[in-house]
Amino acid sequence: MEQPNKELIDKWHKIVFSKDMKALEDILSDKIIFYSPVVFKPKTTKEDAMFVLTNVIEVFQDFKYHREFYDGKKWALEFSANVAGKSLKGVDLIEFDDNGKIINFEVLIRPLSGIIALGEDMNRRFSDAGRETKPLIK
Amino acid sequence: MEQPNKELIDKWHKIVFSKDMKALEDILSDKIIFYSPVVFKPKTTKEDAMFVLTNVIEVFQDFKYHREFYDGKKWALEFSANVAGKSLKGVDLIEFDDNGKIINFEVLIRPLSGIIALGEDMNRRFSDAGRETKPLIK
Repeated sequence: MEQPNKELIDKWHKIVFSKDMKALEDILSDKIIFYSPVVFKPKTTKEDAMFVLTNVIEVFQDFKYHREFYDGKKWALEFSANVAGKSLKGVDLIEFDDNGKIINFEVLIRPLSGIIALGEDMNRRFSDAGRETKPLIK
Repeated sequence: MEQPNKELIDKWHKIVFSKDMKALEDILSDKIIFYSPVVFKPKTTKEDAMFVLTNVIEVFQDFKYHREFYDGKKWALEFSANVAGKSLKGVDLIEFDDNGKIINFEVLIRPLSGIIALGEDMNRRFSDAGRETKPLIK
């Protein structure tokens, strides 16, 4: 495993825990691809990735990182959080480019009740922002 | 990050790709705790963990590992697979004890359609085996 960039780790933790959205925007590459836990198709614009990430950071209560894996520019970070009274676990798979910007961000969540609670909350926020929403379960 | 045990990695890959259920049983600790992607409450008996893992290994088609993170006895393994025609991504969080046995196994899956396809297939298998099942979505 490659050594991780300690400065980048501190920067990321600060973004998440101080909810610093300016710093979040700064750390995302213009070419970021974002994979949500809910839908298969990734978001391929920085604006969409920012919208989802800022709302997710707002929705998650009692957010904590647990096992953290760093392999150079590739990270896997286990977390726990509460959404609408549901406890959930998750993993952030994050990949940086050579300039220290995030180019790939994938979020996985368990259990099913946790994803549904998150998806419903996110759908409400998409709808309130005048964005297109689809029913969670077909 | 601690160096991983290369022999243990080879052993694990062999179990998954050759579907060697005898070797799987051998590598699971009697104290294993298994967290499924579908329900919050973990399985706390080796028999339950074996039942779920053997069925999951059977259900997953075109199973492939991608980014793999090893931090000594703690692993995070990204995978892709198909279940009932649905493409899904996942992460295995695996933890070994000092004897090289798995004591903690947690699986996360995205997207929502993939978890539901897996959950429905697993529910059928639980029911066929005379085990208790609960409706996936309340």
